[in-house]
Amino acid sequence: MEPLTELFAERILNVQKSFIREILKIAGDPEIISFAGGLPNPHIFPVQEIRTACNEILKADGPNVLQYSTTEGYLPLREYIANDYNNKYKLNINADEILITNGSQQGLDLISKVLIEKGDPVIIERPGYLGALQALSIYQPDFHNVTLKEDGIDLIELTNILSAFKVKLFYGVPNFQNPSGISYSQQNRVKLSEILQLYKTIFVEDNPYGDLRFMGKDLPPLKKWLGKQSVMLGSFSKTVVPSFRLGWICADRDIMDKVIIAKQGADLHTNYFCQRIVHYYLTHFDINAHIEKAKKAYKEQRDAMVTMIEKYFPKEVKYTKPEGGMFLWVTLPEGMSSMRLFELAIKNKVAFVPGAPFYIKDGGSNTLRLNYSNSDPEQIETGIIELSKAIKELKVNYCP
Amino acid sequence: MEPLTELFAERILNVQKSFIREILKIAGDPEIISFAGGLPNPHIFPVQEIRTACNEILKADGPNVLQYSTTEGYLPLREYIANDYNNKYKLNINADEILITNGSQQGLDLISKVLIEKGDPVIIERPGYLGALQALSIYQPDFHNVTLKEDGIDLIELTNILSAFKVKLFYGVPNFQNPSGISYSQQNRVKLSEILQLYKTIFVEDNPYGDLRFMGKDLPPLKKWLGKQSVMLGSFSKTVVPSFRLGWICADRDIMDKVIIAKQGADLHTNYFCQRIVHYYLTHFDINAHIEKAKKAYKEQRDAMVTMIEKYFPKEVKYTKPEGGMFLWVTLPEGMSSMRLFELAIKNKVAFVPGAPFYIKDGGSNTLRLNYSNSDPEQIETGIIELSKAIKELKVNYCP
Repeated sequence: MEPLTELFAERILNVQKSFIREILKIAGDPEIISFAGGLPNPHIFPVQEIRTACNEILKADGPNVLQYSTTEGYLPLREYIANDYNNKYKLNINADEILITNGSQQGLDLISKVLIEKGDPVIIERPGYLGALQALSIYQPDFHNVTLKEDGIDLIELTNILSAFKVKLFYGVPNFQNPSGISYSQQNRVKLSEILQLYKTIFVEDNPYGDLRFMGKDLPPLKKWLGKQSVMLGSFSKTVVPSFRLGWICADRDIMDKVIIAKQGADLHTNYFCQRIVHYYLTHFDINAHIEKAKKAYKEQRDAMVTMIEKYFPKEVKYTKPEGGMFLWVTLPEGMSSMRLFELAIKNKVAFVPGAPFYIKDGGSNTLRLNYSNSDPEQIETGIIELSKAIKELKVNYCP
Repeated sequence: MEPLTELFAERILNVQKSFIREILKIAGDPEIISFAGGLPNPHIFPVQEIRTACNEILKADGPNVLQYSTTEGYLPLREYIANDYNNKYKLNINADEILITNGSQQGLDLISKVLIEKGDPVIIERPGYLGALQALSIYQPDFHNVTLKEDGIDLIELTNILSAFKVKLFYGVPNFQNPSGISYSQQNRVKLSEILQLYKTIFVEDNPYGDLRFMGKDLPPLKKWLGKQSVMLGSFSKTVVPSFRLGWICADRDIMDKVIIAKQGADLHTNYFCQRIVHYYLTHFDINAHIEKAKKAYKEQRDAMVTMIEKYFPKEVKYTKPEGGMFLWVTLPEGMSSMRLFELAIKNKVAFVPGAPFYIKDGGSNTLRLNYSNSDPEQIETGIIELSKAIKELKVNYCP
């Protein structure tokens, strides 16, 4: 017969396999110190508490916690999430504006399914989160980029795009962005919201790392100013455990009605057993103490990396100093290639993610992402020393 | 601002909320005997074994079972699934042809994403599985129907459609179909495969109930004859537990490469903790003994329903006698409305799903689906008596 490949839909032909996943295969070698992944530190996982939760819910409600459940998700868990927003940021969110998803990645897939037609203009940060690029690409939008500056979105660039194109959706990560580690300032949030309201563009604010702020002042989501025009994505992957793939989408009822239909078609409902485990965990153990523990670990790891970079990297190399989250972003002098650096670094047994894939069209070839959450301070010291040797080696052979 | 509804993509405007879920809200009243849902019998869930599995995997490998994992799924679980096919049906499936999904519903969403362009002709059985109609509708195909007869697909109808349209995909449920309870005969499978090979149409064979055969002879999947042209969907929802939402898709490597990309975009990977639980369960407990227990319960429930229907329903009412699965299908005399019957039955405190929603365009208004897996024999007796009263009441007022 003819090759099956002739049958593929156009939408899937445009999307590449995750480049990071290919890099992670190389970085999987146990001899390599990897700053490439985005894994939380597994030493802080609440293994014993999860075990207690499993036992208690199975003992108390065995058949029910193993049965099919609702598309929207476990109501007490949705109420917990709504209350948490309301308490933290004085919002007024109802549980029926929350739907439990398979990680925030699914939230992004569902909202894309609901909103994006082929050719619709959408905006993503430059550099942007690779998983979002992949999720959005499936729906074949017309991508636009706005530069992420030190204090957030470049508002002039944004206004230029919004006045030229009818942009339906802007995807951004206001706190400790992946890959850059940058957060939008309070002022940037306010101004950005004003502009988005003027142009009626939906802001999809993804916030996987927001609770992991170990320095500086917590800032509210753009929902605070945008109201209905904001769709928030959240996740328990970084605050409880990743393997459950539990996240949520928070959207106005009009949008939520359509998200529910998309979720029914996509997989009927999210794993209910793990929704019950997480709800038990949140209501029977001290989640705040647990998050403090995570923040302490991440701050130590971040500090170790920043200190070592200061000490060993050539002065012309720039880098971000994140106040939370799991990544920092390095910019080599213009013209130096982080892809070439990757090849040299791998020989020195250290891995990272080159920056180019985080850019839609061109750019970023002199940038790279470093993850500090999955290496201990000793590994970070050795890794940064080896990486700086590779940078120096690259410099010698580098003709700008 | 303008209503957000103006922003919706065309694809989502075509899809209705699941009609069954609306019915289930009415049927949720504890005073009502419900034959409406599709829930497994919760009394047979292996609660204690699941508890042991949770404890053992957390004790032995805590941090790892709670960490992020691979898009394809836990390799030993994928090997188990491949071996199970190979042992049962003498197939030659490799673990890299299996990807773990959030229930078989997600498998259908992913394969639709990979294959279906707007307007592509696709075929579904008449009557057809509602969840499939919903999943496929999102991708805006041109739906065609082939009648499901007592021994399977109407091959003449099928040939007519295939010779008139270039059909990319045919979705079917060869064993104990939902909603009809019908299985394709061996001969029907062979002939159907020959025809599909001639026209190069991919057959997506969904098989949630295949292991629940309590009468008759087990039959191989169409993959046996179709090879690469078959995509199989499977699920642990009916054999282990539903709340984990664990299923799989089995496809040729060419298709699988694209399914992996679609899965990455959709939600990165399936809940890993529950993959580990199910793998532990399958390799440390007697799954065959457990399935025997399920089959025994379902046979008793099915026998109770068939016996009561024979005893109480008017003779002109026709019904299927399934050899497995969870549903049987009732056909009232032409012109009698099962929607009207539903209203009468609810007054008698018994619920079912009217057949019309299982038909794409017209038809089926005199049919209904009865589920027997979630009611005990006493409830089944009372429910069928009350339903037959409603049928007789409808007959009195029924002018053909």
